[in-house]
Amino acid sequence: MRYGVATFPEKKIQDFANSYRKRYDPHYALIPPHITLKEPFELNEDMLPQALQHLEQVAKETSAFTVRLPKISTFHPTNNVIYIAVDETEAVKNLHEKINRKSIYHEEEYSYIPHITLAQKLSDSELHDVYGSLKMLKVEFETRIDRFHLLYQLENGSWTIYQSFLLQE
Amino acid sequence: MRYGVATFPEKKIQDFANSYRKRYDPHYALIPPHITLKEPFELNEDMLPQALQHLEQVAKETSAFTVRLPKISTFHPTNNVIYIAVDETEAVKNLHEKINRKSIYHEEEYSYIPHITLAQKLSDSELHDVYGSLKMLKVEFETRIDRFHLLYQLENGSWTIYQSFLLQE
Repeated sequence: MRYGVATFPEKKIQDFANSYRKRYDPHYALIPPHITLKEPFELNEDMLPQALQHLEQVAKETSAFTVRLPKISTFHPTNNVIYIAVDETEAVKNLHEKINRKSIYHEEEYSYIPHITLAQKLSDSELHDVYGSLKMLKVEFETRIDRFHLLYQLENGSWTIYQSFLLQE
Repeated sequence: MRYGVATFPEKKIQDFANSYRKRYDPHYALIPPHITLKEPFELNEDMLPQALQHLEQVAKETSAFTVRLPKISTFHPTNNVIYIAVDETEAVKNLHEKINRKSIYHEEEYSYIPHITLAQKLSDSELHDVYGSLKMLKVEFETRIDRFHLLYQLENGSWTIYQSFLLQE
């Protein structure tokens, strides 16, 4: 099955993101607004217990933290994605790095940039227009990251929760 | 916020359900196929810790179990819903009843019938047609219920996971 690890920002940030995703993100209906902590990966069912044990261990070793979401940015020209930037603090980078280890380690195509996608798969001219207006928005969100979730993908592309893991308070 | 408690059947059952929900369930994009364990309810943020403690306690006191999903049925004429029936075993009824207690107790409008919705909000003639063909399907699924999840609803009507609770093995 195809699994991924993500965390969800607080509700008001999800609602804000959805107001744009609805129009500009074809994944709008597949998963709520999220910060990916590990990109989708294939895992055989018989390896699931080991993966769960690893994720439990990560949660046990990691303290909950707060991150700022200081602005709207884009991966253009690498990728026509517009997103809410998440401050690249040690805490969030460490969490990502600790999750992507052991039995679920995969080499990554891109370096890790934590973010919440607002728009993707835009044409260059759409990107130009949408980013032109979105980058003017003053966003000054912050969100507590006190948990993460293992999800798996269904045949229609949508994601179902498998298990949540609570960071230490 | 508006919360609900649900469990997700195994992936192949979700994929089966989605193949019908896509056409016949306007909630298709709002939540994956699920068995509701507690109907949506309002909860103030300051009551959340108590609710979590209660749900943890329920999980600690409850053993995982397997349920059969023996047929496709309908709530018509009460409600034009078509669903996969879940065997009304003591295990599933007890789990429902234990969850709906303490700080999150609410009186229920209908008696609890565990099910996975395939179609809803159909007109009488649609229901007649769709149920006429679906009831002929031989479904002989079963699914392990070894966890349940607390979810909350976003402004667009979709549901985000808050926390999962593991039953005892």
